[in-house]
Amino acid sequence: MTGLEPHQLSLNTATLREQWDLAQCIEGCARHGFGGISPWRDKLQEMGVTRAAKAIRDTGLGVSGLCRGGWFTASGAVDRAVLDDNRRAVDEAAEIGAECLVMVVGGLSTGSRDLPAAWALVEEGLAATLDYGREVGMKIAIEPLHPMYAANRACVNTMRHALDICDRLGPGIGCAVDVYHVWWDPDLAEQITRAGRDRIMAFHLCDWLVPTRDMLTDRGMMGDGVIDIPRLRGMVEAEGFSGLNEVEIFSALDWWRRDPDDVMRTIIQRGRNVC
Amino acid sequence: MTGLEPHQLSLNTATLREQWDLAQCIEGCARHGFGGISPWRDKLQEMGVTRAAKAIRDTGLGVSGLCRGGWFTASGAVDRAVLDDNRRAVDEAAEIGAECLVMVVGGLSTGSRDLPAAWALVEEGLAATLDYGREVGMKIAIEPLHPMYAANRACVNTMRHALDICDRLGPGIGCAVDVYHVWWDPDLAEQITRAGRDRIMAFHLCDWLVPTRDMLTDRGMMGDGVIDIPRLRGMVEAEGFSGLNEVEIFSALDWWRRDPDDVMRTIIQRGRNVC
Repeated sequence: MTGLEPHQLSLNTATLREQWDLAQCIEGCARHGFGGISPWRDKLQEMGVTRAAKAIRDTGLGVSGLCRGGWFTASGAVDRAVLDDNRRAVDEAAEIGAECLVMVVGGLSTGSRDLPAAWALVEEGLAATLDYGREVGMKIAIEPLHPMYAANRACVNTMRHALDICDRLGPGIGCAVDVYHVWWDPDLAEQITRAGRDRIMAFHLCDWLVPTRDMLTDRGMMGDGVIDIPRLRGMVEAEGFSGLNEVEIFSALDWWRRDPDDVMRTIIQRGRNVC
Repeated sequence: MTGLEPHQLSLNTATLREQWDLAQCIEGCARHGFGGISPWRDKLQEMGVTRAAKAIRDTGLGVSGLCRGGWFTASGAVDRAVLDDNRRAVDEAAEIGAECLVMVVGGLSTGSRDLPAAWALVEEGLAATLDYGREVGMKIAIEPLHPMYAANRACVNTMRHALDICDRLGPGIGCAVDVYHVWWDPDLAEQITRAGRDRIMAFHLCDWLVPTRDMLTDRGMMGDGVIDIPRLRGMVEAEGFSGLNEVEIFSALDWWRRDPDDVMRTIIQRGRNVC
């Protein structure tokens, strides 16, 4: 397998969230020859959705996803506020021409230990958001997060669980496969085959550092950790995935402190040599 | 479901590893009315296996397990040194009358990203250790660790994976179910049913704290976190598990700093009220 060229890469704006606003991310992606971008909603709203959509269109960048919808569980019920917010996220994703809306589904409800109840809320919220996504033609991508986030970020933690939900909900919903979250799973190859091309909606890159000093913000640059990225990339490409390879690195201790153009150059170099 | 009485509890010595040596743990378990103990090998060897075995027998305590064998992957081959060490662990477990030898199987080999290779080494090492365990009548219990330890502690991270290995290796090998490692898994109920009584060899208690400040040493006392312990206990008891409930809490920031008798009393109180 050959490495990734810049036109195959997408920058998730979380990677440079401390250095660049969305306008700078768009300009930087274009200047470095990236194929696309994936904004977070806070940066998108800060810039203005219409203005951002025009800037992205003007550069010709693809949009590998919008991060993120979800968070269905916090209040203990899938209420109007959370459903409305997810509808807005769908609309924003459509306006910027995103491939999918990435869903971080939420963890346990506040004060609760009832994991099956959280799973039920998540499925209810996904079903409602999917209905609206179908209306406007926006795909919904469940991102299974690493099990260490089950309590407080997302209680869907494996591809198998995500695909069980997708099977029940039908067309238009699939998965965002992030190597950080799924690399450890012995069931991964089988589940990626089960997902198939239509349900692999995004592919995210970073690396798992040893040691990991912080459970949220110590993700590594590709090549600095232990994930066999070519092996995982081979799995999704074997199913026909040909979308952008989105680089999403939460790194308070390292990459968020560096010169952003150096970070972009490093991503390009690592894409070519270790992915 | 009623709470746990002290005679249903076992103290894993890691819970008081900073306060008590093994002789003190044995005396403390007896004095507080615990049903059993589960030593770590460092404390066992420090006391002397024969002397410890006699002290445990004299108190009438059960031994819910010996922690731990495994670590098959570090050098990149299942070599003589690691196999010999695991044989010694089997012998020690037998000498103290342990229910099982608990296996922490090891993560990626040093410098390696090859997870399937690590899985193969683990299975090779388990097979050899199981052969010897059968000779001396000692059960081998794979402890699936939380996926956040896949790289550096254990690359078997789900009950499903552990049971797949058990299915291939045959009688005498099963699982140690630790709520900390498995609570998040949507597949857990099905896999505990699949394990059945004979392969649920140990049941470990602590809690998952939110936030978790350290990935290794910030486990919680039962009731202080988000794990629905009665639900999980109900699963193993529904299969007929009637062994000791072993309390294993790694807690550098809290319980390792407290008076050990206060810790024992807290375990008893939480056993009765939240487990």
